[in-house]
Amino acid sequence: MLNELKQQVLEANLALPRHHLVTFTWGNVSAVDRQQGLMVIKPSGVEYDAMTRDDMVVVELESGKVVEGNKKPSSDSDTHRVLYLNFAAAGGIVHTHSRHATIWAQAGLDIPAWGTTHADYFYGDIPCTRLMHEAEINGRYEWETGRVIVETFAERGLDAAAIPAVLVHSHGPFAWGKDADSAVHNAVVLEEVAYMGIFSRQLAPALANMQQTLLDKHYLRKHGKHAYYGQ
Amino acid sequence: MLNELKQQVLEANLALPRHHLVTFTWGNVSAVDRQQGLMVIKPSGVEYDAMTRDDMVVVELESGKVVEGNKKPSSDSDTHRVLYLNFAAAGGIVHTHSRHATIWAQAGLDIPAWGTTHADYFYGDIPCTRLMHEAEINGRYEWETGRVIVETFAERGLDAAAIPAVLVHSHGPFAWGKDADSAVHNAVVLEEVAYMGIFSRQLAPALANMQQTLLDKHYLRKHGKHAYYGQ
Amino acid sequence: MLNELKQQVLEANLALPRHHLVTFTWGNVSAVDRQQGLMVIKPSGVEYDAMTRDDMVVVELESGKVVEGNKKPSSDSDTHRVLYLNFAAAGGIVHTHSRHATIWAQAGLDIPAWGTTHADYFYGDIPCTRLMHEAEINGRYEWETGRVIVETFAERGLDAAAIPAVLVHSHGPFAWGKDADSAVHNAVVLEEVAYMGIFSRQLAPALANMQQTLLDKHYLRKHGKHAYYGQ
Amino acid sequence: MLNELKQQVLEANLALPRHHLVTFTWGNVSAVDRQQGLMVIKPSGVEYDAMTRDDMVVVELESGKVVEGNKKPSSDSDTHRVLYLNFAAAGGIVHTHSRHATIWAQAGLDIPAWGTTHADYFYGDIPCTRLMHEAEINGRYEWETGRVIVETFAERGLDAAAIPAVLVHSHGPFAWGKDADSAVHNAVVLEEVAYMGIFSRQLAPALANMQQTLLDKHYLRKHGKHAYYGQ
Repeated sequence: MLNELKQQVLEANLALPRHHLVTFTWGNVSAVDRQQGLMVIKPSGVEYDAMTRDDMVVVELESGKVVEGNKKPSSDSDTHRVLYLNFAAAGGIVHTHSRHATIWAQAGLDIPAWGTTHADYFYGDIPCTRLMHEAEINGRYEWETGRVIVETFAERGLDAAAIPAVLVHSHGPFAWGKDADSAVHNAVVLEEVAYMGIFSRQLAPALANMQQTLLDKHYLRKHGKHAYYGQ
Repeated sequence: MLNELKQQVLEANLALPRHHLVTFTWGNVSAVDRQQGLMVIKPSGVEYDAMTRDDMVVVELESGKVVEGNKKPSSDSDTHRVLYLNFAAAGGIVHTHSRHATIWAQAGLDIPAWGTTHADYFYGDIPCTRLMHEAEINGRYEWETGRVIVETFAERGLDAAAIPAVLVHSHGPFAWGKDADSAVHNAVVLEEVAYMGIFSRQLAPALANMQQTLLDKHYLRKHGKHAYYGQ
Repeated sequence: MLNELKQQVLEANLALPRHHLVTFTWGNVSAVDRQQGLMVIKPSGVEYDAMTRDDMVVVELESGKVVEGNKKPSSDSDTHRVLYLNFAAAGGIVHTHSRHATIWAQAGLDIPAWGTTHADYFYGDIPCTRLMHEAEINGRYEWETGRVIVETFAERGLDAAAIPAVLVHSHGPFAWGKDADSAVHNAVVLEEVAYMGIFSRQLAPALANMQQTLLDKHYLRKHGKHAYYGQ
Repeated sequence: MLNELKQQVLEANLALPRHHLVTFTWGNVSAVDRQQGLMVIKPSGVEYDAMTRDDMVVVELESGKVVEGNKKPSSDSDTHRVLYLNFAAAGGIVHTHSRHATIWAQAGLDIPAWGTTHADYFYGDIPCTRLMHEAEINGRYEWETGRVIVETFAERGLDAAAIPAVLVHSHGPFAWGKDADSAVHNAVVLEEVAYMGIFSRQLAPALANMQQTLLDKHYLRKHGKHAYYGQ
């Protein structure tokens, strides 16, 4: 069942340590089959080097019910579900505690669009969510984590297709893309701009956002119908 | 004698350079056999790539006497002993000069709980000990180093089972866990939160501790009788 | 056609990930054949590990026309062309988003000559260009990027032979050299001095430029007719 | 001639890239034969992976004359000579532009003794030399570089045996030890304390030097006649 998707999710999970995005098992990737309403996600607490395709768990998007797999799905499963249910652009989702994105999340700050590396992938600042309420933390915590991400995009009028990542306050990043591989790709870029942002601000503490025209140029030459760029 | 424990201690020591926690031989791991009142520890000054199981030294916990082994035990042996004698939760102990934990130790500062990476492993700030008195330094120095750690936990009312690491002022970190492998695991996490803390504070100089509710949630979903989490 | 030059350009491109100067395909190297007025450049969007000599694209310097190659030339092709047409000293050119040089570019600051590592390769500060005008960004953007680099050197009276690199504001670095390999070499040094500069300024916020005499000594003992140095 | 010493110098030079202390050929190691008054040093400008034992150059300490070898000695040869002629404790010397030591050198600051990692190897602050005078730079520059190091130790009453490293202002570090291998060892520790010092000061901007008693304890338990320590 969904063997091709499972293979993609496996490979995307294995790409996380290769890109230095995770320590131990601190990360998880999923992908969605929209037609069947199913999500394939990494099992909980399994070491990367022992993981096989058939360890991947199939979860029903609407109900959260495990449809296939003899392991528990990642504990962050409910956060992934909320994002798939609300962000049509998400075909794959990745969660990590990658160092520099997590630093911004711990500081509770958005990552401003400060250069063309950012603009090539993210059409504006990468938002950091608000602090969660006590009731959210003590309630269905992982589900509510997804809800607060969706709220952040809704309240700020952001398009999840154009800004495929978020920082969860005091926690760490989620990134997404058209499939699992593309989600990991965006997570790598996020980590890169997070790193550069820390020290750009150190050099220029009052640094303003980049020019809107330049942001438009770089984002739009790579995305949308007028795209022409490849480096 | 204690061959299985020696093998665990050997492997935990070899894990230190693999996790980039040590330069040269700057680190040591031990483990305890509580029933026999014995500790197995790395020998003094031996290179990691030449170390074998039978180089591990067996030390009597109460007396400090070497019971087996033809090499000297690590010079930090007495610090390990004090910790085993006072922290029932410690089954394995690791000492390193890992870069970022040592930076906080040199600055003489606790590492505040600033995110869920921290909260997943440490149930509150990671304490830094007070400066040692002249008499402690000039006396049984390594033993007194252990004493000042124990004092820090006692005076602040900290539970060594819930905060399995400490920074020794002007020196570096000790971490522990239920066994040698788990002690190394905690030392890796400590280094990770130490790194992220330096730059979280750079981005947000007046950063407050994370929400207590969130700290509770993350620590308790992974530890204790209501634990359910695996990433 | 130009097989030797293509091989050099291929190898120089492959050197970029080896020197940790690029993530994914974020970089491109070219080299020029001055006699024939032709430039050989990396194709657009091809992965480094799949790239072969025959993927390299031959472009006419004056017209920008592709003379040979069944792939599109790098989208930054026009920037390379402008630099070859204006900087006689450039035999090879490299563009990357290497982390620390990009940090200075994002901050919009020149990298001051702060030590002999810098002086061994760059005879003065490494300039950062001005912000581009809206018309330049919305016009022939990649060509105009080259124009603003040339303008920077002209207005400041800089010699591209003696300062073989530039930071494009809000974007990243370009470096050049007598051939493709030498351009990559300079890009590595640029990244090195960019890294060291960030933290030199952290330690000494009001740091003045190095002594002119020392800059002269180091640059001139390695370059020009009185050169004698090899480390 | 001096084949054993040449082999040691070769291996010490090859250790530099392995310890990430050098980029390209930016480093050189030498060792001395005091009885014969000869120094063996890396040749100038040779790549590390092509270097053989017989490339090492033998130089007369007093005169600087090349006694054996068909390559030029490292251009920094004269600096090494001055140090051997003045520091009896130096059996081997290493010069690098290692990143973090160079950052302190560029900032023109001593590295304060801020922790036991430092105290285990260096019995006090690691000094940074004064700016060189124009006449020194324009005169016998490499020789004068050595002279200003010697002057620094003399004027401050420092013992080169107890503080086996120095930062040359606006340039980079030299380290030494009883032989070539030990010099490289000290260069690695220097880089380590240089890194940790940058961020210790970031966390605690007004950080005072460590306690003298603790400095004494750590240095003296590893050095001198009462040494007992091995980690």
